[in-house]
Amino acid sequence: MAFLMEAGRLTAVERATWTVDGARMENSAEHSWHLALFAMTLSDEAPEGVSIDRVIRMLLLHDLVEIDSGDLPFFADGAEDSAAQAAAETRAADRIFGLLPPDQGAAFRALWDEFEANETLDARFAKALDRFQPPNLNLATGGGSWTTYNVDAEMVRRRVGTRISNGAPSLWAWLSPRIARFFTKD
Amino acid sequence: MAFLMEAGRLTAVERATWTVDGARMENSAEHSWHLALFAMTLSDEAPEGVSIDRVIRMLLLHDLVEIDSGDLPFFADGAEDSAAQAAAETRAADRIFGLLPPDQGAAFRALWDEFEANETLDARFAKALDRFQPPNLNLATGGGSWTTYNVDAEMVRRRVGTRISNGAPSLWAWLSPRIARFFTKD
Repeated sequence: MAFLMEAGRLTAVERATWTVDGARMENSAEHSWHLALFAMTLSDEAPEGVSIDRVIRMLLLHDLVEIDSGDLPFFADGAEDSAAQAAAETRAADRIFGLLPPDQGAAFRALWDEFEANETLDARFAKALDRFQPPNLNLATGGGSWTTYNVDAEMVRRRVGTRISNGAPSLWAWLSPRIARFFTKD
Repeated sequence: MAFLMEAGRLTAVERATWTVDGARMENSAEHSWHLALFAMTLSDEAPEGVSIDRVIRMLLLHDLVEIDSGDLPFFADGAEDSAAQAAAETRAADRIFGLLPPDQGAAFRALWDEFEANETLDARFAKALDRFQPPNLNLATGGGSWTTYNVDAEMVRRRVGTRISNGAPSLWAWLSPRIARFFTKD
């Protein structure tokens, strides 16, 4: 129960993306739920060999480290290559997964490590969804965090598109023209 | 995408339970995430034959109807036997799962119907977790919604304990003395 109550603090971690109704910033707990629902709903877009149930579990856990390290927006300065952030997340993983019984803690940690490494098919699909959801919220809210960070189409393609097409090519094929249309409109 | 963006509105549905840090009321999106994490973490407490992956999927969906019908707190007047609420939830399920392609809509709806019917092992475990999480948040926040609704130990046992012990006897055995201790202390 120590782990589950500590995990509840993820509701206090604010992200840089607006909720779909534009009412406020999304937090990392509801973001994790939304992503798990994306995985469940978009299972037909997963490359062959992906286990959706493993992807869902990965996504439920993927942001827990932010309880200690906070969320670093994609488009914030230095977000692309932050060794300090990575070190903070590793310390957070040690502490938070350390609240579990050892065997279970190791299993959860292995799933988080796999997500972070972004190498297996499951991790690449999970990571693709993590990059796929915010643009859809931005499109639904007239720009959202793209406006906040003064982002252009090329930055979206480079920082978001690369990851999406790496894990879920068909989702990037679907999203890419919608993003292009949004930025042309401006 | 219509379904997934509509689902995002679950972040705007406020529940009667406080978040673990006591900062504000929990919303149904983050509640759904927390429950899925409970299922994943407490899998050893599930009765034999339960599929945790199906339980997780059920919990990710279980509150979507509240986008239209709102959350009815356990201890609110009339919460135990509200035909009006049930009818509103059925209309909501028709509309929300109707946003999906027909086959997928039917599959998601079947999972929600199974949860609501509370008969299968998976549904009973999922429902037990839905009743198990709020008392833990209440204990962590010094009473939480029990204080708001002026609830006593007997009401908790009747409205919450019955469901928990029906789907996850070992979790009720663990929780029950903690609840008794809390109310004795007052």
